Amino acid sequence: MLRVRYQDLFDALLRVLLKLEFEPERARLCAQLFADTSRDGVYSHGLNRFPRFVSMLRTGYIDVHALPVLRAASGPMERWDGKIGPGNLNAHHCMARAIALAREHGMGCVALANTNHWMRGGSYGWQAADAGVIGICWTNTLPNLPAWGASDPRVGNNPLVIAVPRLDAHVVLDMAMSQFSYGTLAAYRMRGELLPVDGGFDGEGRLTRVAGDIEASLRPLPIGFWKGSGLALMLDLLAAILSGGKATHQITADPDRENGQSQVFLAFDVASLDQTDSASRIADQVIEYFQLPPHSAGERVRYPGYKVLTTRKENLANGIPVEPSIWRQLDSL
Amino acid sequence: MLRVRYQDLFDALLRVLLKLEFEPERARLCAQLFADTSRDGVYSHGLNRFPRFVSMLRTGYIDVHALPVLRAASGPMERWDGKIGPGNLNAHHCMARAIALAREHGMGCVALANTNHWMRGGSYGWQAADAGVIGICWTNTLPNLPAWGASDPRVGNNPLVIAVPRLDAHVVLDMAMSQFSYGTLAAYRMRGELLPVDGGFDGEGRLTRVAGDIEASLRPLPIGFWKGSGLALMLDLLAAILSGGKATHQITADPDRENGQSQVFLAFDVASLDQTDSASRIADQVIEYFQLPPHSAGERVRYPGYKVLTTRKENLANGIPVEPSIWRQLDSL
Repeated sequence: MLRVRYQDLFDALLRVLLKLEFEPERARLCAQLFADTSRDGVYSHGLNRFPRFVSMLRTGYIDVHALPVLRAASGPMERWDGKIGPGNLNAHHCMARAIALAREHGMGCVALANTNHWMRGGSYGWQAADAGVIGICWTNTLPNLPAWGASDPRVGNNPLVIAVPRLDAHVVLDMAMSQFSYGTLAAYRMRGELLPVDGGFDGEGRLTRVAGDIEASLRPLPIGFWKGSGLALMLDLLAAILSGGKATHQITADPDRENGQSQVFLAFDVASLDQTDSASRIADQVIEYFQLPPHSAGERVRYPGYKVLTTRKENLANGIPVEPSIWRQLDSL
Repeated sequence: MLRVRYQDLFDALLRVLLKLEFEPERARLCAQLFADTSRDGVYSHGLNRFPRFVSMLRTGYIDVHALPVLRAASGPMERWDGKIGPGNLNAHHCMARAIALAREHGMGCVALANTNHWMRGGSYGWQAADAGVIGICWTNTLPNLPAWGASDPRVGNNPLVIAVPRLDAHVVLDMAMSQFSYGTLAAYRMRGELLPVDGGFDGEGRLTRVAGDIEASLRPLPIGFWKGSGLALMLDLLAAILSGGKATHQITADPDRENGQSQVFLAFDVASLDQTDSASRIADQVIEYFQLPPHSAGERVRYPGYKVLTTRKENLANGIPVEPSIWRQLDSL
């Protein structure tokens, strides 16, 4: 594994995006979102995902020039049309709008139709928390997860992001509805390891910890079985209804052509209700209690986002780990 | 099992509440919320829970006379103090406020501090959906669930409710963060059955399907292991910060004295953005796709809320099943 400096990764991504005719400012934000994702240790959706992003720009499933368009507005709520533009830029724009609405109204809700894969969902949670507001967002996806009791994939593995700001270290949950992503399943298979818990069904419909068997059956397990399946369905309903855009059943099942997703971005500015500025202190107390006592192995119990911050620090100090083949591939993009 | 008519159950509950000095109108709503809960098949939080509710009224952990008080308001957001009044009345009031705010602003957020157990969370989801709006609500609880990697309970088994209205049959998710409630664990133990999937840890820290071993270890499993644990934490953070009320770590671990919970009620009125009134049609299409094809046993895949409606219909036709001992106990309350 090669390690590259953050600035070098950013510059390399920027060069490719400018060649693809991104406006300079949009190219910089897009490069930053990809570089930040690798910096924070979410390698699957940072540099590793970039070649596929470029490929979808070339095939036209992502429109490099498309800017989101406001379709409807009513007080703290807005509806935008993403015009199948770059998903991370659309999502960043909509969370910025939700934050602005929250500053004005106390809360904001921006629903986005007709967008593209937002890459790392957590980016928009960190964006809200960095602005000092609570952020909640989710996206629907192509049908890629069988509901509990079903054998073929008719719900999306819809990620849900919830971010609570703190002065020192935000708390950011970024989770999809399957117990393990396909990326994680592949990693376990390649290392020849069993999953730590059941991750899906094998070809005969039995729960299994063998990652390769789940990849073959296309039946990963929703978190909490029937519960995660139900939550995934609700997130799809909310995204499609609030945005007026596509639901999972209207999105192609071909990952290389997946576009038109619907997303929701909520922001809450507690300062509108509470001038005591106590939110960060409340969060500190909750996290302190949560982390005690240490669990059996002597480590502290991890809160959502904890690992991101330690990885970020390490990667900024020592360089960001990159796959040499993908790093070299950037030259040819 | 005895079956009683809805009206008889309602009348019996009302009689007790009036004797406990509830105002007549509040007594009627409280009796209705308990009776509706049993009618809808959520027996654990209907009549079966009523004696404990009465006991907490008598010990003063629920204040029969307390009305919720508005503490702060800013456009679509409000903060209320529940004054440790009856939790179902407080919650019903706050969802009604969220619905009213959504009618005015497109969306509403009501955060409630210092309340009491809301009994069946789904009640307030159905309340929103019956009013034709999307409803989302959650509560924190006493610490009763070990976080993933922890051995003692430091997060709450915080229920999350999401409701989407349809013309015929609303879609309502009502789920707590543990794979099985203590009530369900007890039911499996008494029937001598294994849980359908792992439900927690035994005394030696191994995952198990033996309900009694989990009851003994006090280590039920969060849905999706680390994921449900993280989601439970976020719901607590949001409830405490938005309401300015207690977080789980500030709530007593004694279930008979549990009060002061914090809750959040969100409502979204899509009509503010979309005059085409397409929401119900979108939801119908999503559910239709979700339910096909039938799974292996030939049954349809169940969406959240489906079972409630069939149980409701059956219980209204044939009477509501009640435990004879609890039904008789009403006379002595």
